[in-house]
Amino acid sequence: MKNIPSYIKEHKERFLNELIELLKIPSISADSAYKSDVLKTAEAIKSCLEKAGCDTVEICPTAGYPIVYGKKTIDKNLPTVLVYGHYDVQPPDPLNLWNSPPFEPVIKTTEKHPDGAIFARGACDDKGQMYMHVKAFEIMVKTNQLPCNVKFMIEGEEEVGSANLGDFVKSNRDKLKNDVILISDTGMIANDTPSITTGLRGLSYVEVEVTGPNRDLHSGLYGGAVANPINILTKMIASLHNENNHITIPEFYDKVEELSTEERTEMAKAPFSLENYKKALDIDAVYGEDGFTTNERNSIRPTLDVNGIWGGYIGEGAKTVIPSKAYAKISMRLVPNQDWQEITKLFTAHFESLAPKGVKVKVTPHHGGQGYVTPISSIGYQAASKAYEQTFGKKPIPQRSGGSIPIVSLFEQELESKIILMGFGLDSDAIHSPNEHFGIWNYLKGIETIPYFYKYFTELSK
Amino acid sequence: MKNIPSYIKEHKERFLNELIELLKIPSISADSAYKSDVLKTAEAIKSCLEKAGCDTVEICPTAGYPIVYGKKTIDKNLPTVLVYGHYDVQPPDPLNLWNSPPFEPVIKTTEKHPDGAIFARGACDDKGQMYMHVKAFEIMVKTNQLPCNVKFMIEGEEEVGSANLGDFVKSNRDKLKNDVILISDTGMIANDTPSITTGLRGLSYVEVEVTGPNRDLHSGLYGGAVANPINILTKMIASLHNENNHITIPEFYDKVEELSTEERTEMAKAPFSLENYKKALDIDAVYGEDGFTTNERNSIRPTLDVNGIWGGYIGEGAKTVIPSKAYAKISMRLVPNQDWQEITKLFTAHFESLAPKGVKVKVTPHHGGQGYVTPISSIGYQAASKAYEQTFGKKPIPQRSGGSIPIVSLFEQELESKIILMGFGLDSDAIHSPNEHFGIWNYLKGIETIPYFYKYFTELSK
Repeated sequence: MKNIPSYIKEHKERFLNELIELLKIPSISADSAYKSDVLKTAEAIKSCLEKAGCDTVEICPTAGYPIVYGKKTIDKNLPTVLVYGHYDVQPPDPLNLWNSPPFEPVIKTTEKHPDGAIFARGACDDKGQMYMHVKAFEIMVKTNQLPCNVKFMIEGEEEVGSANLGDFVKSNRDKLKNDVILISDTGMIANDTPSITTGLRGLSYVEVEVTGPNRDLHSGLYGGAVANPINILTKMIASLHNENNHITIPEFYDKVEELSTEERTEMAKAPFSLENYKKALDIDAVYGEDGFTTNERNSIRPTLDVNGIWGGYIGEGAKTVIPSKAYAKISMRLVPNQDWQEITKLFTAHFESLAPKGVKVKVTPHHGGQGYVTPISSIGYQAASKAYEQTFGKKPIPQRSGGSIPIVSLFEQELESKIILMGFGLDSDAIHSPNEHFGIWNYLKGIETIPYFYKYFTELSK
Repeated sequence: MKNIPSYIKEHKERFLNELIELLKIPSISADSAYKSDVLKTAEAIKSCLEKAGCDTVEICPTAGYPIVYGKKTIDKNLPTVLVYGHYDVQPPDPLNLWNSPPFEPVIKTTEKHPDGAIFARGACDDKGQMYMHVKAFEIMVKTNQLPCNVKFMIEGEEEVGSANLGDFVKSNRDKLKNDVILISDTGMIANDTPSITTGLRGLSYVEVEVTGPNRDLHSGLYGGAVANPINILTKMIASLHNENNHITIPEFYDKVEELSTEERTEMAKAPFSLENYKKALDIDAVYGEDGFTTNERNSIRPTLDVNGIWGGYIGEGAKTVIPSKAYAKISMRLVPNQDWQEITKLFTAHFESLAPKGVKVKVTPHHGGQGYVTPISSIGYQAASKAYEQTFGKKPIPQRSGGSIPIVSLFEQELESKIILMGFGLDSDAIHSPNEHFGIWNYLKGIETIPYFYKYFTELSK
């Protein structure tokens, strides 16, 4: 392929500015107050795909936020790459921890990003990584080097569980027909250590509500005599892990894939410094399931974390209240073979069984998805590996991620193709956290690498 | 005493309207946003005391909210009653559970208040009960029946721990010199079962903060590998009670007063229906320390309740975050002989010791106070008992309350007089809860009863 670095160099400022404009729209799918912004973002993506060179682009309605679909067909006999990404973003809370407003992008240098990084909610997850594909596509079109057909499917509900994408995929198998699905919604080890994500964890996300008395009570008059839903909730949650940090839900581990000693030894070769890890997080010790290393705990083992908890008086000062209700949002990361719906049922049954008399418990499933493993023998993986080797000068390391893209296993099942996860962000990019950012070097390196994936995938498909 | 019922009948509308005006001011001491309203309330109280007949009234500044002091001296040889009350109120949260706005008082009838009740934050606690004393005083002055000297000390920081009242009392022993302290900030059993509170629990209120990683993390990438401060906080809180619901803090029970079988048998004679109690709260079982009844658990036994908990994402929808911090507000109700400062130290040391590696823990004491017991042999108690007998037609039952008025034991210590707790509210009046109210019958009955306390106390003091 020719002229790719020079095209990027020439259009770098525009590539950055276009992304910055997208980042200014607060497309927070979890909060209905931002509905018009989410819809506005879908329109913006449509316009970007048209300008980049798609033959047709449509905004496909769903029961929730729409899916932006675009395509360019050059020859029906050539393979088709389906690019998936999302234009919605996580809520920016807690706002007070951001050094600059989350929807007013700024460029600053960091230790890991000496060439600068764009700070904004969605910079990396996933507007920045999704937009790399739009720009890589533009380059291939404008330089007449597009080697195959392309389809885009950019959704607006990834951060709230892709509730409507499954139906869309099932109803549009022909429209979405492809030979490989390409996604950039994961990370890599380091700028000098490229890696490709070969596994994702599944997810079951639930909300629990514990109700004690029918109204808030004075803790002096009722304290000690009625079940306080907060005290009860803490007891229930605490009991979900035992003293070895194993999850105590019956049958939870029954289907967990146990890796062989060889596989674990292979995993342990990935570069990792526990000291740097602790230092970066300012913690004096890591914490997790006995018998597993940090890299195993966050990739091949299932976990249970409370993502939010609230109840009673949480304002300034003191209020001596026993609240009527206490709540928590709890998510479980699952490994291949654990079925998220079965785990959600096991959780619900167990959690309800933990409730003592004197309280009522309600468990509401939010969303979930299966885990996924990409075989490194597939031509998709091989093409991606060669692409990284081309632009990074070294072979990428295959790596299991602890994250989840719940829809990935559904893609494989419904569309019968393999999913390749080419991520260019770093773990330190603070996705889902205040001060999310995405390195400019990473953004441009992604744009440079993607066309080679198209080239090698088309070649290997012959 | 003459003409008291007729004076009340004649001025009933005004008595109600004056209270309603006070209730319109949102004097929330816990929230600094309401500072000017708290100060405005102090001014209003000053004006009320002047109109009611005080010789002098002053607004005494403190490091926090001011104390309104008023007095009327008729004869230095006669005894002096010091009335204590507070003009600040609890925060009204959760606002959405109020049937009418908390600072727009409305009168509605209820099952327990067929003559109507005023619904508003502070209606009972303590603006309504405090204002009974102002109106009772007015009646005695205007009908020329005041039998002794009177002092008023109305503070604005009771709901946040009376942080500055102790210093004020210590610095003004002469100004506050009295023979008995009269307070209406407690309740009674029922309108046909008058009771006088003879005991109050002490209080230690703390806030705890658990810090894990230095920033919010993505629960997929870090889940299972670092200590999640919410999970840790729930484990720490859960461990504060054992399987018998005893508090596990070492030495916590060392000084707890153990009542004799006789005393417990006497207590058990107070009218109480467990079925009605459960029904009123819509719970299927009570919950508490093994080996004690409901009425013991909420009066003679110390307790530990979480009054508020928060951490992570608590908005609409889902966010897969491991937060950097989690928090809880925890209060302990203490019984006589437990020193609140000692208990706060025991809690702090124990809670800090519970923290596993990987998190940091901070405990911040909010406020506290000692428990208190009034001897029923005192002339103050005897005078109150006779007053109730006069207006209710039956002798009141002495009763230990589970609530706390942290400053009461300090009054006894510094001012060397006994405290009489004449409360006219009901447990069902929802103080500290949404839809707080105060029965009009109770308000007027309080105004009618108080003058007889003055009469009998003066007579018994001779």
